[in-house]
Amino acid sequence: MGNGVKIEIIYDNPRLEEKLLLKAARISGVDVLLTNVKQHPLRFEPPDVDVSLVRCVSMYNAVHSAAVREGAGVRAVNSSQSKLNAGDKILTLSHMKRRGIPTPRTAVGLDSESAHKALEYIGLPAVDKPPIGSWGRLIALIKDLSSFNTIIEHRDMIANKLMKTHVIQEYIDIPNRDIRTLVVGDEVLAAMFRYRRDGDWRTNVARGGVPVMAYLNEELKEISLKAAEAIGGEILSVDVFEMGDGTYLVNEINGCPEFKGFIQATGVDVASKIINYLLKTARG
Amino acid sequence: MGNGVKIEIIYDNPRLEEKLLLKAARISGVDVLLTNVKQHPLRFEPPDVDVSLVRCVSMYNAVHSAAVREGAGVRAVNSSQSKLNAGDKILTLSHMKRRGIPTPRTAVGLDSESAHKALEYIGLPAVDKPPIGSWGRLIALIKDLSSFNTIIEHRDMIANKLMKTHVIQEYIDIPNRDIRTLVVGDEVLAAMFRYRRDGDWRTNVARGGVPVMAYLNEELKEISLKAAEAIGGEILSVDVFEMGDGTYLVNEINGCPEFKGFIQATGVDVASKIINYLLKTARG
Amino acid sequence: MGNGVKIEIIYDNPRLEEKLLLKAARISGVDVLLTNVKQHPLRFEPPDVDVSLVRCVSMYNAVHSAAVREGAGVRAVNSSQSKLNAGDKILTLSHMKRRGIPTPRTAVGLDSESAHKALEYIGLPAVDKPPIGSWGRLIALIKDLSSFNTIIEHRDMIANKLMKTHVIQEYIDIPNRDIRTLVVGDEVLAAMFRYRRDGDWRTNVARGGVPVMAYLNEELKEISLKAAEAIGGEILSVDVFEMGDGTYLVNEINGCPEFKGFIQATGVDVASKIINYLLKTARG
Amino acid sequence: MGNGVKIEIIYDNPRLEEKLLLKAARISGVDVLLTNVKQHPLRFEPPDVDVSLVRCVSMYNAVHSAAVREGAGVRAVNSSQSKLNAGDKILTLSHMKRRGIPTPRTAVGLDSESAHKALEYIGLPAVDKPPIGSWGRLIALIKDLSSFNTIIEHRDMIANKLMKTHVIQEYIDIPNRDIRTLVVGDEVLAAMFRYRRDGDWRTNVARGGVPVMAYLNEELKEISLKAAEAIGGEILSVDVFEMGDGTYLVNEINGCPEFKGFIQATGVDVASKIINYLLKTARG
Repeated sequence: MGNGVKIEIIYDNPRLEEKLLLKAARISGVDVLLTNVKQHPLRFEPPDVDVSLVRCVSMYNAVHSAAVREGAGVRAVNSSQSKLNAGDKILTLSHMKRRGIPTPRTAVGLDSESAHKALEYIGLPAVDKPPIGSWGRLIALIKDLSSFNTIIEHRDMIANKLMKTHVIQEYIDIPNRDIRTLVVGDEVLAAMFRYRRDGDWRTNVARGGVPVMAYLNEELKEISLKAAEAIGGEILSVDVFEMGDGTYLVNEINGCPEFKGFIQATGVDVASKIINYLLKTARG
Repeated sequence: MGNGVKIEIIYDNPRLEEKLLLKAARISGVDVLLTNVKQHPLRFEPPDVDVSLVRCVSMYNAVHSAAVREGAGVRAVNSSQSKLNAGDKILTLSHMKRRGIPTPRTAVGLDSESAHKALEYIGLPAVDKPPIGSWGRLIALIKDLSSFNTIIEHRDMIANKLMKTHVIQEYIDIPNRDIRTLVVGDEVLAAMFRYRRDGDWRTNVARGGVPVMAYLNEELKEISLKAAEAIGGEILSVDVFEMGDGTYLVNEINGCPEFKGFIQATGVDVASKIINYLLKTARG
Repeated sequence: MGNGVKIEIIYDNPRLEEKLLLKAARISGVDVLLTNVKQHPLRFEPPDVDVSLVRCVSMYNAVHSAAVREGAGVRAVNSSQSKLNAGDKILTLSHMKRRGIPTPRTAVGLDSESAHKALEYIGLPAVDKPPIGSWGRLIALIKDLSSFNTIIEHRDMIANKLMKTHVIQEYIDIPNRDIRTLVVGDEVLAAMFRYRRDGDWRTNVARGGVPVMAYLNEELKEISLKAAEAIGGEILSVDVFEMGDGTYLVNEINGCPEFKGFIQATGVDVASKIINYLLKTARG
Repeated sequence: MGNGVKIEIIYDNPRLEEKLLLKAARISGVDVLLTNVKQHPLRFEPPDVDVSLVRCVSMYNAVHSAAVREGAGVRAVNSSQSKLNAGDKILTLSHMKRRGIPTPRTAVGLDSESAHKALEYIGLPAVDKPPIGSWGRLIALIKDLSSFNTIIEHRDMIANKLMKTHVIQEYIDIPNRDIRTLVVGDEVLAAMFRYRRDGDWRTNVARGGVPVMAYLNEELKEISLKAAEAIGGEILSVDVFEMGDGTYLVNEINGCPEFKGFIQATGVDVASKIINYLLKTARG
């Protein structure tokens, strides 16, 4: 069974996913240490575990939890580095571009003047995202200059430099859905469509997007594994746009994926897949 | 002379340092492309340069500028990765600890409850820093619980998750100064003391700290180069505490160092050192 | 019974107090319209009520709810004006000073330089408050210049001009308690002490302060009614400091008082007192 | 000449207007005390002046400066009360509605759910403003639900309750200009059009709006004086929309008006008018 492997699950706001992981670990006979970082401080001393599975909802909590564990010599999954590469959309794009993985056409404006020029370069309509953020939050569809000015004014009022950074991308008129795959180690578990809800152009399940199983073809497998490798991540989801000509673009990567909708759409037992992967790799 | 090497200097708020770098480059006959990221958008297409020297004051501007250049296949100095490792104090500590480089005793609280426990573990007096920040800003000396509660309340009001993350460290009662060294490639240029000003316990030159040349001994050289290597940085400053027993601790690392005070204290022509290093390494 | 009077209770986050008010109204046979401003928009059209009792926790929600009702010709209790006078500590002080009601010695700094000079004038130790805020939040006890600098730096990071405004007051070394009275119309219902909890210098019940009944003497009655009149408020609590020489100072006024602790300490049926007052005054 | 009258001019960021006021005062032989609230703390003690003219750019600085002077028995122009009534758009509307002065159709949402219902009530297109703000900042033109959601998400990220308050108003399709009048005491000095610049739907001069003299007819005079009286203000500008049928609506009121553009458009010596008004009324 668990072979004496001990796994730490680090979390901040426990969701269904964390409960499923705990249950899967117990079924596998794995010893689990639960660490709620809202209650427990992190010290640079190794807890008695073989691997730390970092499941914080907050991207920075995830990065910092992984970093402290790594500083104490404990393997964190995903690593602090890959959490950052996935969590910061400019780092994600940088890694995709370096490997030649297709992504939307993008320009980055680090201030309002450069943001305006970035928009000119990309053209209208465009998408304007801050580099950090989940569930599609603050991602704005820019249809005209007047609404772009309004977005810039609002971002400038948020006391966070990252909100003043504008990642401007071509708006890709995908039918009414995107594709999400889930990668665990070197396996792509399955693929699903996320259909957007009426009244929101975003497909995020948190925004009412509807998950439906999709066929996982070879191209999807290949682009997902390449993206995961570029990011350095072991467990992550890859959001893919399907272009009119049948090719794929990587849109975003999530380094701490929710998978409730994924289970519902595909029937894959994601939690067990993750626990088995950790067991297999825990003892090198 | 410049050997046909072309250097891009990327900046946001040009300081004396950037002007000195430009002058040094011109004296060396190097072709310079100046990119003000507040005015110019960043595209994932390589500018016609051999290397990009990233000198943004804003840490995130620096990281993102480097990342976009790297995405286009251009070498950035420092790399986006090392800019992040130096800019985020938890990542810095993680890398120091991994290599066994001494640092102050630290515990991290990712929320107010865990911050309180982190402080209990470290004991009073302590230092409470957010993971991100320059010039000693928001670094609080905690003498009692009541002032700690006040700090926590204030950080909670700032709309930035990172400000709710408390890096709690033992307060090290250094005499009235710390040491800063400057690393360029595998050379430590010199060392200086920073004497704190009356009325502020912090030594930052931006807070009135007074820079004075210090003797660069072998131990300082060694710890500086180790710290630089751990971070993956090529050009950076290392802030060191000198303990009562003559040993050293690495306190912080700056991945885009100001060096006006350093020139004043040590007389080293830092700008030329940096340009020469880039020339030497530009063409592999 | 209710005499056909119809009362609107406007609220945002219902607490025990609002439930007690609703119950008291029903016992009195009063018709109640409940308006949750988080769900219902406010229009400048009169709802079919005789008076609107504004019980929002958020001071601005209270002010704006009252203002919209007043704009539609409906009497709001308290009025938008008195909600503001109580909610903004500088306005409160202004009204107290105009009527010669004693308050702590105060100077206001509208920026960091003037805040420093305000502190010089008041002397150490001092209290530094933003003009807006509840439950003692962000109220800092300043014992030395270094911690004052830290507070100023923190306030500067909050994206709200009011947090950069420093109300600096002499620290009054009250024994270990202050006094709170509750005013409804021209009646002072009772008085209570609030004993501070160990480890916090503030007496707020929300911070663990312990409420205990106090004797309501004539001086307390008089200063409470004067303060209420100065503010223009009908229903409010007055926080009073008892000086070494037996005189009183008004510290703060709350225009939408919580009264759970007050009932516990004094046994007064505050909710019925408020409803009866509204009944008595509703039809002019 | 100045008749021994002494005027204090209170300011934070001196603009051309404050310089013109100082010059006009000196020409009139008036003694002037200049108080920069960024440098000087405000105490509740009367400075040796007859009246304080409050010219702070920051609305809260203006309110608080006036309140402290009033607390010390000094007349402030405008009063703290009228500064607030003009500065908070919900208070402004409340006062207009009470007096039957026409304004745009408005509903107020104090949270995202009530904001959505407020928009439903008003209909598309609509204007969404926070209650506080100058130069048209953060005022969004809402053309569809998707952009409304984006605005709500952005406002929610700003650490200021007032930014989460949505004043939703019908979008009034004025030709390409609005009208501004300037009131000093019981005189309306003149009227001007503000023509909007290409690419911005707002007419603010700070946004490139072009000021042109307008004919001050009796209706404009009347609505301006009524609005000033409702607000309790002595010196203010009134922004008016001219409807298709020739009637007028009051849109906003400014309690500390800039008048550079006004002088340029109308030739009126506003500064002297203000100083003369203060002289005339100083010794009541």
